[in-house]
This record gives sequence, structure tokens and C-alpha cells, in this order.
Amino acid sequence: MPGLPELPALELERLVDLALAEDLRSGDATSQACIDPDRRGEGDLVAREGLVVAGLDLARAVFRRLDPDCGFEALAADGDELAPGTVAARVSGNLRALLSAERSALNYLQRACGVATQARRLVRLIEDLPVELLDTRKTTPGLRVLEKHAVLCGGAGNHRFALDDLLMVKDNHVVAAGGLDRAVERALAAAGHAHRVEVEVDSLEQLDELLGFERLPDIVLLDNFTPEQVREGVGRVAGRIRVEVSGGIDETTLRAFAEAGPDAISMGALTHSVRSADLAFDLRPAAAP
Amino acid sequence: MPGLPELPALELERLVDLALAEDLRSGDATSQACIDPDRRGEGDLVAREGLVVAGLDLARAVFRRLDPDCGFEALAADGDELAPGTVAARVSGNLRALLSAERSALNYLQRACGVATQARRLVRLIEDLPVELLDTRKTTPGLRVLEKHAVLCGGAGNHRFALDDLLMVKDNHVVAAGGLDRAVERALAAAGHAHRVEVEVDSLEQLDELLGFERLPDIVLLDNFTPEQVREGVGRVAGRIRVEVSGGIDETTLRAFAEAGPDAISMGALTHSVRSADLAFDLRPAAAP
Amino acid sequence: MPGLPELPALELERLVDLALAEDLRSGDATSQACIDPDRRGEGDLVAREGLVVAGLDLARAVFRRLDPDCGFEALAADGDELAPGTVAARVSGNLRALLSAERSALNYLQRACGVATQARRLVRLIEDLPVELLDTRKTTPGLRVLEKHAVLCGGAGNHRFALDDLLMVKDNHVVAAGGLDRAVERALAAAGHAHRVEVEVDSLEQLDELLGFERLPDIVLLDNFTPEQVREGVGRVAGRIRVEVSGGIDETTLRAFAEAGPDAISMGALTHSVRSADLAFDLRPAAAP
Amino acid sequence: MPGLPELPALELERLVDLALAEDLRSGDATSQACIDPDRRGEGDLVAREGLVVAGLDLARAVFRRLDPDCGFEALAADGDELAPGTVAARVSGNLRALLSAERSALNYLQRACGVATQARRLVRLIEDLPVELLDTRKTTPGLRVLEKHAVLCGGAGNHRFALDDLLMVKDNHVVAAGGLDRAVERALAAAGHAHRVEVEVDSLEQLDELLGFERLPDIVLLDNFTPEQVREGVGRVAGRIRVEVSGGIDETTLRAFAEAGPDAISMGALTHSVRSADLAFDLRPAAAP
Amino acid sequence: MPGLPELPALELERLVDLALAEDLRSGDATSQACIDPDRRGEGDLVAREGLVVAGLDLARAVFRRLDPDCGFEALAADGDELAPGTVAARVSGNLRALLSAERSALNYLQRACGVATQARRLVRLIEDLPVELLDTRKTTPGLRVLEKHAVLCGGAGNHRFALDDLLMVKDNHVVAAGGLDRAVERALAAAGHAHRVEVEVDSLEQLDELLGFERLPDIVLLDNFTPEQVREGVGRVAGRIRVEVSGGIDETTLRAFAEAGPDAISMGALTHSVRSADLAFDLRPAAAP
Amino acid sequence: MPGLPELPALELERLVDLALAEDLRSGDATSQACIDPDRRGEGDLVAREGLVVAGLDLARAVFRRLDPDCGFEALAADGDELAPGTVAARVSGNLRALLSAERSALNYLQRACGVATQARRLVRLIEDLPVELLDTRKTTPGLRVLEKHAVLCGGAGNHRFALDDLLMVKDNHVVAAGGLDRAVERALAAAGHAHRVEVEVDSLEQLDELLGFERLPDIVLLDNFTPEQVREGVGRVAGRIRVEVSGGIDETTLRAFAEAGPDAISMGALTHSVRSADLAFDLRPAAAP
Repeated sequence: MPGLPELPALELERLVDLALAEDLRSGDATSQACIDPDRRGEGDLVAREGLVVAGLDLARAVFRRLDPDCGFEALAADGDELAPGTVAARVSGNLRALLSAERSALNYLQRACGVATQARRLVRLIEDLPVELLDTRKTTPGLRVLEKHAVLCGGAGNHRFALDDLLMVKDNHVVAAGGLDRAVERALAAAGHAHRVEVEVDSLEQLDELLGFERLPDIVLLDNFTPEQVREGVGRVAGRIRVEVSGGIDETTLRAFAEAGPDAISMGALTHSVRSADLAFDLRPAAAP
Repeated sequence: MPGLPELPALELERLVDLALAEDLRSGDATSQACIDPDRRGEGDLVAREGLVVAGLDLARAVFRRLDPDCGFEALAADGDELAPGTVAARVSGNLRALLSAERSALNYLQRACGVATQARRLVRLIEDLPVELLDTRKTTPGLRVLEKHAVLCGGAGNHRFALDDLLMVKDNHVVAAGGLDRAVERALAAAGHAHRVEVEVDSLEQLDELLGFERLPDIVLLDNFTPEQVREGVGRVAGRIRVEVSGGIDETTLRAFAEAGPDAISMGALTHSVRSADLAFDLRPAAAP
Repeated sequence: MPGLPELPALELERLVDLALAEDLRSGDATSQACIDPDRRGEGDLVAREGLVVAGLDLARAVFRRLDPDCGFEALAADGDELAPGTVAARVSGNLRALLSAERSALNYLQRACGVATQARRLVRLIEDLPVELLDTRKTTPGLRVLEKHAVLCGGAGNHRFALDDLLMVKDNHVVAAGGLDRAVERALAAAGHAHRVEVEVDSLEQLDELLGFERLPDIVLLDNFTPEQVREGVGRVAGRIRVEVSGGIDETTLRAFAEAGPDAISMGALTHSVRSADLAFDLRPAAAP
Repeated sequence: MPGLPELPALELERLVDLALAEDLRSGDATSQACIDPDRRGEGDLVAREGLVVAGLDLARAVFRRLDPDCGFEALAADGDELAPGTVAARVSGNLRALLSAERSALNYLQRACGVATQARRLVRLIEDLPVELLDTRKTTPGLRVLEKHAVLCGGAGNHRFALDDLLMVKDNHVVAAGGLDRAVERALAAAGHAHRVEVEVDSLEQLDELLGFERLPDIVLLDNFTPEQVREGVGRVAGRIRVEVSGGIDETTLRAFAEAGPDAISMGALTHSVRSADLAFDLRPAAAP
Repeated sequence: MPGLPELPALELERLVDLALAEDLRSGDATSQACIDPDRRGEGDLVAREGLVVAGLDLARAVFRRLDPDCGFEALAADGDELAPGTVAARVSGNLRALLSAERSALNYLQRACGVATQARRLVRLIEDLPVELLDTRKTTPGLRVLEKHAVLCGGAGNHRFALDDLLMVKDNHVVAAGGLDRAVERALAAAGHAHRVEVEVDSLEQLDELLGFERLPDIVLLDNFTPEQVREGVGRVAGRIRVEVSGGIDETTLRAFAEAGPDAISMGALTHSVRSADLAFDLRPAAAP
Repeated sequence: MPGLPELPALELERLVDLALAEDLRSGDATSQACIDPDRRGEGDLVAREGLVVAGLDLARAVFRRLDPDCGFEALAADGDELAPGTVAARVSGNLRALLSAERSALNYLQRACGVATQARRLVRLIEDLPVELLDTRKTTPGLRVLEKHAVLCGGAGNHRFALDDLLMVKDNHVVAAGGLDRAVERALAAAGHAHRVEVEVDSLEQLDELLGFERLPDIVLLDNFTPEQVREGVGRVAGRIRVEVSGGIDETTLRAFAEAGPDAISMGALTHSVRSADLAFDLRPAAAP
């Protein structure tokens, strides 16, 4: 199997400029003042705690944006677990550029590694079970492509990327369409050739209603079910369509839900409440030229 | 005293488009499929836990972007503390638009309220002391203007916004400049009329060196000091310049540092590791027209 | 069932500016020279031939961009078939604005209606058969969202929108992955929860190989098959997965392929070689004020 | 005489990103899944029918955007006529990049070659006559610079690029200005030093009115004249100003109009209803490394 | 004759955002601090010296960008000459918005009025003579559309807007093409239907060479001629083509050149070395609400 | 001490594209017509008058944008004073690219050098005195980063860059806040840790009021004082805070104000009314290849 997918070049550029435009503005006044223009330096991106790596390509792109010729030697790869103190990458180049890029590179890397590390930790809890742990659209605006990449680095999977992806019929769609049957019918018609349809149900009764339709969606989402209800629901679906569970699941209940037999479990917490991983950039200015 | 500053209009627009471009792409397929185009709805942005409000203007701007005529009645203001179950704002408008905007509005609001709530909680720990709690540049790339606003909503203060602001002389600047004296001299010269200069020292010895200079910076940052060292440092500074403390401070040690007498304490945790506040958008489709 | 989906607001704006930035540049010199600034006018968007309407929202957005207060009365809706001479919409407003917007509005409308009209014509050929006619990614760069919308207006369906949508395993992926089995396995793993997988086969032998896999993709694409081969292939698939046909299909052979029983037929010609529909903007300057 | 003008670098970049942003979004999921990251490949851009080349620089720029180091050996030049089966260019580089870029490169190339080929075919019909065949502003929004370039590749000429170019006085300008004399006077005054003025007339009587003015425009456009009327009009102009003919001209009548003696004939069909040229990208993955 | 052309809406927006993005960044800290959010004010844009008005639409657009509902009553029009102390426009609206917009509005207005005033002053020197005074491309990058508009407001004329406009054959083109004859021939061929061609000559001998060609350009530019040489050159051209003069012309020599009989005189000084006009924004905060 | 700060890379790119997008549009028609595509040339950027260099990095970036491989040998550095006739830089590369870039490079360079030269001239008048000459926000919209850089090249200093920098309390803030005391109090509270506060006073009485406050701002601005009043004011401040003077200062009065003893003098004329420096690009096409 191949490794993880890469962030596309255009997205890398967009993210780099999003960060640097905000932080640099008219220039890094302190570095310009204190550092001679040709001074060089070398630094290590170091894991200060155990973590899962994600976003190294983006960190490299941040440094390269300010010093196109800087060296960036990756000593780890996205998805690797690093012990505390491990060097993830070594960067060398113009010292002003390294210092000006440092905070932006770290802000991205700490967040991406934080997401990946949290995902890995949760995946570990259920990795012996045939269930996929999924993210949601509860991501940081503008950074979804990075955070969903980090989720993959952590070993979990991606739910839909955007609203034009997989169609998800939720309670408001049902009310607005005038019933579950009409909402599902409309969604299946609109999904057409390329897209899956997932339908949220909030009770076993609603699940039964859904399972009675002539044409089933690809996936049913059991929303805010107890583990016992999930087990019952999975039994009623009987493998005809994919079953996802979500709502009110946290670290303490994850395994119970997983053991109830769904195909997938989604948790907003994979991206919306992540502690940044602790990485530092240990920089050593070169001796004066 | 006036209320909180507002997010500038151009930044509101930039943030709105940052989120919607990512989430909507070629359209909200499910809502288009299931909901008739003229259907209307009304919904409440509800605090599901106790929280401090931040970012209501941005939430309104997100909804208005998709339905320029939608109603948005704010029932709370940025900075307010809401009890669980309180409605922060009521939104009414085109149902497709409300559903398409919901996730982007919540993603921003949950993060901003999360930052504000955490700031308020930390501020409470030291509010009887004459010390200011400050954020850092450890913010989410692209969202700094929002997160720094949320910090103010929580009652804490803002450190510099970007690298062209206040000059901060750190260890690498000292090494590159060839000594603390030369680095400070260069920074003061570059700061000129408009900018403050802050200098980081990592020991009482280095503090003494700094205090011996003919011309002092505006602020000294005591980095990774113990509370006792801070107290000693504050004594040596003797009010001549502002004293900031940072490094290794968390919720459990914050008060000890504050009691040591600095003017300001900065904590990256104000923005880089925030649990999203729990808000929901309770939407009610109107009866069919 | 609801009507057609709408082009999202941000995409409408992007398309409007794409056209006007190119055509207006430093200004419409002739209209500025010859027309007094407050002069008004009224005009009809008229079908000069029989056509299917598509893109009226975009035409309105173009006019509104230059005269935010202009009237735009739609007398037809996207998807309608108009007889020659029918007025699709009536526009009234500032005369300079109407003239400056005219060409951009028409360029979009003629292309969108051209696509919709061609789609409708082809759909008519097979509308009694249980097969869906699909577009491809052979669209005009930058205008995909409009052209895929026009395809829907014509009554045909959309294949995937972009490369991050449904995964399509083609011959090069098979070679690179080292065999059909490995390519399909990798694609299914990557597709995860949200995306379908389609696999292209170019012979009945390759179809048999595919059908022997333990886990099947969602769709098989029979590429460059004859109608007879399609019929045979459909039989072998036996309803287990969706069958799409493409390659070498034109107006004269479409029905033969459709009668061979696939679920879908895709044709690049739906978008890549379309004659613009003949619409005019019949404008009447108001009497001098 | 030099060759054709080049598309300016900024426009090439804009066009490349216009296409790739739309097609790649969060990434080429299939290629990422099936192809190892360092795999390489080589492919030929092949004319599958006789065609005139246009847009090779843009095709190269698309591939280079995703693999900056990819090889692109042009075996033909813009303006060349290729026999079916001829290789126009050979591309080699990272296999994922080549596959991700393929559709965007082809979408541009097929359209540009289609425009050039159609232009060449029409030019051939009248190339023995002293008349220039011109395009119009009926181009694809956003792609005008490419399509007008393709028209030159085909051997035809460009009419004005945008509304701030040559001033064209049309019927609505005449009505709004209160008469042909006042419209022409205003346009000539506004054209000033840098711009030409062209005036549309729709009858020989209106032509006579124009020819009686003290100051003539640079060009008269005989709109919707018959070939006989054109011949008569050309005689009355008697070489004093340039004569353009447009309106209702198609392939079957082009020569008759050309023989009537105008200086130029413009046809919207040069750009607005073009069949894409048939080019393919025959790609060969390299053996596994 | 109609009034001056207007700056197109898209250009107005671009200019407004160019200024405000630079000046506002994360917000107008002082106004946010000192002024309550609903406070209103009214202010006058006052000419503090005699000047010619230009750019009022842009000033309005700047204020409207920050307070969409602000009142802007223009008491003068672009092109008007104002006596010292005259109010050009009255603005009323949200006080924070007015103060935040003030500097950007004034920066544009002072520059545009400065350009218009200088143009008017120079035009006055030669207004009895049949010669047109023209600007050049020596404009402020990004502001060309505004500065060329201001030139018109002052009563002078516009030379070409950009490099894709009128073709200008200069000395380097002649050398590169291998002679004046070949350069002119190439330029005329490239200019085609829509564009004029102007050819620079630097001596009477070179003028004679040009005048001997079978096909003449539309305009000849006599570069760095003395007034006497211009007179001689004008005589030799004898009205066959338009004559422009440029190079080494300043306020003291302008009239002598004009009396030598050319059709047009161009001066870079119209835009590249302009003293800003003295305008102020006299603002009166409303009484507290 | 280190040299001048550099313009940040992202700002260089923004400025380059701002100029070239405006000037090149669909291409440099004349150079494309007259010059063969591979022709090369070499040219000198020459000071035609005595001037101070500023903006060389930007000039290089303009040329490099159109010929990434062009040679650019800087023979002077920003801040250098050049005698008339001195070559500031030598550029070699593709001839079409050099010609297409020439005007944009010169427009920037002439303006930046003009600003630097004027600043140097004014600084010379007071360089023996302990006072800093400062610019203002009266800069060209979009070019502030360049013009403030040029001010530094000339030897003067920068006042605040934008409205979110140093807080400046002016008369309208005082009125709106309901008194000098309340305005200053609010501003100091808002300035917080990172920003200075400057307060404008327009009389000695108001200065006295300010000096009586318990907490003083960092800087007082004596606005429209006479030199005698400045001297008196400086005496009353007695070194407690920084004193800036502005308003009604020109070249003839600058020294008198400087001798009155303030810390800084700001003059809008440093940027808002600058004569472009006279630089030329002397280009020599290479012999035909």
C-alpha cells in the first residue's frame, strides 16, 4: 500500500501565504534590526513530547517561502510516532528567514501533530475492532485540508470534505422535505452517479422506516444512540448498508460504541478541541561569516 | 470606557470567505436537493454550556453572506458570560442559506467562544492582582485577528499582533548580533518613534547585564524563571521598565507567578490549545409556504 | 421534487468578476463617451432559436454587478424550453451599465444555454430507457460549475466534479499500481467512508478479472466497448455494481449503447464541443430624461 | 517577420491556477492512492486528427505547475498544422503530477487547437483575397487571452480585446447620443490620441450620412449587409476609411462577402462555437524504480 | 458633450481595498478605544487651496466601504475648479468609520486633485493652440486608472493605457528588428484592425526615412527635438499622419513646443512628479447620543 | 550596526504584480511584434541626476518576474548617494522581457529614489541636531511599504505604519471621548502591552492639561505650534515623555523647529509630494544571434 496522500501544491502555497501574510506584514523588524543579512543558521524541529508527525511538507514550504534555497532534511515522515526529544527535521539557511518563518511553521506543525497524535491515541483504543474512526467538518476554517490530512496521519479516516461531497440528510432536511421518505428520495436523485447518500436517524423507529424504503441510501447515521441501541440498529441493518455512529461519543465511551458493531464512528473532537503538540525549533546561528 | 473593539469589515469578509469557499465549493448538495428554494426557517444559537461570548459579528456575517436579508438578533454581546441553555442570537431567513452557513458560523463561534471562555477562567484566577494576562503569536494561521479579539472578550490582553509590531529581542537575536548590548542597541535604533522594544533574558545575571545599559528597552521578558526568580527580578527592575513573564506557566502555577509581581504574564495556551465551546444552532424550518 | 440546484453565491461572484475584469478593464470607453451618465434603458434577453434555458441567475448577477439597482424580471426558468423569439428575461436600469454588461452576460448565457440545449437533445434520444446520460471533466477551465449546472438544466446528470471526488481507477493507475487487483484495493482503501470508487476496464477479460475480486468497487466503466460488448458486460455484472459506458459514443450511436443496458453513459461532447445558443439582448434606450 | 506573440507570464499563471484550483481541490485522490510518490512517467501529447497547434506554452505551464522539474519537449510550434497521429510534445516527470495535470492541460489545448484549426480552415477559403478575417469579443469568459492567441495561430486576426480598446459606436450609442453625428463626434473626442474609432451602420443611407461628416472615424462596420450592399458600400467609402463587414456570415457565405471588397470580416463563430480539437495524452508509467 | 468617464466599479473596489487593507489591518485601535460604537459625525472635504477636483467617486467609495450607509453629498464634480476654502463634499455617518477612512480617502483625493490641478495649469498655457497635452505611462503602479482619470479631469488627454494598446516603436525595437523599415512593417502587421501604431524618430533624417515608407504609421513621435526641429518636422509630415512631441519639455518650454505645430505633446511630469493638492477633512463629532 | 531592513518577499511579489498586471495586460504588443523571441540585451539603470538609491530589490524583482534567469548586478546599494551618470545596476536577459519590464521597474525606482533623495536632503538640514525626522501615513495607497522603506534609505525615520500600530489620540478622539482625560485614559487602556500611545495637543494649555494626568502617554505631538511654542513646550515636558512636532513645517522652517528641541519632527511632504528621481534604463540589444 502506498503512503499517505500529499497536500496538493496549490493548497500548500495557500496555507503558507495565509500564515506569513498575517505574521510578517511589513517585515520582521527585530530580525532585520539584529541580524546581518547574509548570516546563516541551522535548526532542529524537535518533538518535546511523544507525538505523531503531520504536516512536515507544510513546514518545509513555510521555510522555503522565505529562503528558497534553505535546506530541509526530514528525519521523520508524516505518520511516524516520535519519542520525546526526537528531531523531526533539520533546517538550514538564511538566519533572518529562519527566524521570520519559525512561528508560522510551528503554528502549523504543532496543530497538525496535535490532531494526528489525538487521532492515533483514539484509534489505538479500538484498533482491534473492524470499525473506522472518522473526522467531521468541525475543522478550523481555512485549514480543513491540513487537519483532514493530519487525521489520516494519525490513522483515522476522513468523512466528507465539503457540502458538495457525500449528501447527508439530517433532521432539518427531513422536516423541510416533508418526511423521511421524500427527503431520501430527493437526495438519492440528486446524488446521481458520483456521490454517496447518508441519512441520519435518531431512533430505532426512524431506522425501521428508512429500512422499509424501496431504495436505500449508502449509509445510515445513528445519531445520539446508546451503545445498546447501536447494537440493535446494526442488527436490523444486517449489512445491507454501511452504519455510522455519532453524537455524544468521547474517549471514555468510544470503545463501547465500537464494540456495538458499526462500520464507522465519527467524532468532532478529532479536530475541534485539539491540544497543540509540543514541538520546538532549536536554532543555532552560524558563527559570523 | 467603551466596549470591545470590533473586527474590521475587511477582515470579517476575509474570514467569511475563507470558511465558505472551503465548505460550499460547488454547492450544498443536500440542502439543494431536499429543500425548496423559498423555504424559510428560524434558529437559535444556543450555549450548551457556560461560556463567554466572542465572535457574534462574524457569525452574523457568515449568515448574511448567504442570505443578505436574513434576520440576526443578538441577545448577548461579545464578552458576556452565558449560562448553559442561553440563546446568544436568533437567526431567521432562507432555509437553504441557514443550513449552508451553519457549520461555518459554528466553527468560528465555537472556537472564538472557547478562547474567550478559557481566557476568562484564567483571568479570574488573578483578577485581584495588578498584572495583565497576555496572549502570544501562537494562534491559528489566518485566524489571529479573531483569536486575539476573543482574548479581549475573555478579559485578557493582547501581546504584539505581528513581527512588524513591538520588537522582541530573543536569544537568537542576541547570538546573531554578537551580544546582548549590541542586540538591544540595534533594536532600539530600529524601533524608532513608533514601536516598543522588549528584551528576553533567561537569568538574573542577564537581567543585571541589561539593567546596566545606558538606554533601557521598554519591557523585559523574564523567560522560564521560577516565581522566586521573578520576584527577585521584579525587585531589581524596580519599576524602571515593564516586566513580562513567560515560559512554563500553566493554570496551576499562574497565580504563583502573578503574585511574584510582574506587570504581565503571557501564555501560549490562551490560543494554541483551546477546547471549542459547546454551542449549537437549533433550527426550525418554517411551515411550507 | 424540487427544482434544479442553484449556483452558490460565491461562485456567481467569481464568474461575474472573471468576465467583467477581462472585458471592462479601465472602462467601457464608447458608452462613457456617447451616453449621459443617468440615461436609462430596458432590454430583453431573447431566444433567437429554440433552446433550453440555463444560467439566468448568472446573467442577472452580471447586470446587477454594474447596476445594483437594475430590474431583472425572469420570464423563464433554468430548464425551460423556449421557442424562437421568446423573451427569457427583461432587464432595466442604467444604460451605460446595461451596455457594459451585455457581452459578458451573453457570453455566459449563450454557452450555458448551448450546453443545456445539447444535453436536452441527447437525453430525448434515450429518455424512454433506464439509463442516465452523464457529463465528464472535459469542461472549460474555470467554468465547470456553470457547465455542470447547464447539463442538469438539460436533463442529463453530472459525473464527478473534481479529482478529489469519486475515485476513478484508469489504465495508468493500474500499470503504476502493478495490477488491477492492487489498484482497486488501494483505491477502495483510500475512498473510505465518503467516496465511491469506479474502475475502468477495457475488455471483457478485464471485467471478469474485476468481478472476481473479493471486494467490488461501486461502479465499473466499460471503456471503448461496442454495444454488443456492453450488453455482454452488463449481463456478467448482473446488477452487482453500477455500469457506466464511455468512449467513442456520438449522437448516432448513443441509442445503441443505451439499449445495451448500462446504468449510465458519459459523453465529453456534452461540454467540450458545444455550439453557443443564439440569444440576443434587444436594448431600448429610454427617451432622454 | 517574427513568429506569433507569446501569452504573457502572468496570464499563463492565472490560467493554470484557474484550471487546477477547480480540478484538484483537496487533491487527486485516485493518483495519490494508486501511485507511489516517486514513480515517474513519460507521455506524448498526440494529435488524433489533423489540427493547427495553439497553446503549447500553456500546456507546458500546467504540467510545470505540478512538477516544476518535468521535461516538456515541444515537437511542434503554435501555428503548425499537424497530421493525425503527430506528437506535438513529449512530457516526462513525476507520474502523479502528470496524471493530475493531464485533464487541465488537455482541456486548454483541445480548445485552443480547436479555435486555431477552425480559424485556419476559414482563412483558407479567402486567403487569396486582400481581406482580413477577425474574431470578436464573443469569447469564453476568462479565456479571452488564450482564444485570441489561438485565432492568431490559425492565421486570422484580432478585433479589439476589451471595451477600453478601440471605440465602437453601435446603434444603441447612436440612439442614446441623439443621432449618428453626435455619437461619432463624442467618440472621436474620447478616443483621443491612442485609440481608433469604428462606427456601425446598418444601411447604405446611414453610410452616406456618416461619409458626409467633416471628420470620419477610422473604420466603418457594415452590419448585416448583403454581399451586394457591401460591394456598393465599399465603393462609396472609396478607400477613405477601413471597411469591416459583420453579421450573418457563415462558412457558406464568407467568400461572397470577401469578394465584395471589404478590408475585414469579423465572425463570432471563430470563438463562440468551436469543436474541441482531438488531442490525447498517451502516458507510459515508468517501470517501478 | 457628455461629462468625464467614470472609474469602473471593479476598479473603484480594487483601489478602495488596496488602501484600506494597508491602513486598517487589524483595526483602527485609537478610534475603537476612544469612540463609542454608535457615535456619529459629519465632516467636510475642504479645498485648502485652489485646485481642480478629481476622484470624488473614489473618496465616496472609501467612506462607503466602512459605513455602507454613510451620507456623501458631493458639492462639486470632477473637473471643477475650487477656490480655497470650498467644500467639495459633505460626509456623514458612523464616527469610527469616518475616522478610519479619512486618511485613505484623503491620500487618494489629494493625489488625484494634485494631478488634475497640474494638468489644468499646463493646459491653460496652451489652450488657445490646436494641440493636445497628453500623459504617459509614468504613473504610480496600481493607480494608473486613477491618475489617467485625473489627467482628463484637468483637461489634458490620455496617451495609451498599457503595453497592449497602441503600438509604439522605439529605438530599441528598431535596433532589434534590424532597421526602421522592418520594425514599422512588423508593428503595422501586428497592430491589425484595432490598434494604432506610433513610431519614435530622433532626428529629421529618421523622420524622412519614415515618411518614405510605402505604408505610414498612424503617428510619429518626434523625440527630443528642439521647437525649431519640431516645426520643420511638422512641415515635412504635412498632415499625412499625426505628430506627437515628447522629451525634455517642461513648463517653461511647453508653449514654444506647442507653437511649433504638433498635434500632441506628452509630458511624464503630468503624473510622475505631482505635488499633492491640499485638502482636509474637517470632521465634527455629533453630540453624544 | 546592520544595514537597512529588506522589503519582505511577499510584499515584493505583491508590488511586482501590482505594476505588471496593469501595464502588461494581454501582452507587450510592440516588443512581441518587433523582437525575435530569443533576442537578448543588456542595460544599465543610470542615475541621470544626483540621487539616493532606494528600491533596487524591487527593480530586480520586476525584471526577474518576466525573465527569471536575467542577470541583475547591483553596483550600488539602497541608501547610497549616486553622482549623475552613475550606473546603479546592470541588467541582462531576454530582450522582450527587459523592454516589457522597463517602465514598471523605472516607475518604482524613480519614486523610491525620489522619496529617499528628498528625505536625505531634509535630514542634511538638521543632522547635527538630536532630532529625528519622520514620515507620516500620507503615502501612496498600496505603496506604503516601499515609500517607508525609501524614507529609511534617505536617513529619516518611520512613524507608525498603520492604524493598528501606535495609538494616536487626535482632536476628534478627544471630542468623541468627552475630554482629553477620558480619551487618554481609554487609549492607554487599549494600547496595553505592545503599543505606544501618542497624544496630539494644539496649545500649551492643552499640553499642561495632559502633563497633569496621573498616567502620561509615551509621546506628545505638538500640532501646529510655532518654534517658540515648541521650545516652551519641550521645556514643560522636561524629558518625561517624547515630544513630536508636526504641522506647517516645510524646508524653510524645518531647522527652526529642530532647534526648538523636540525629539522628532514629522512631515507629510516626505512622501506625499515627491518629485520622481531621474533614472533611465539604457538598453543595448545584443547582436542578432
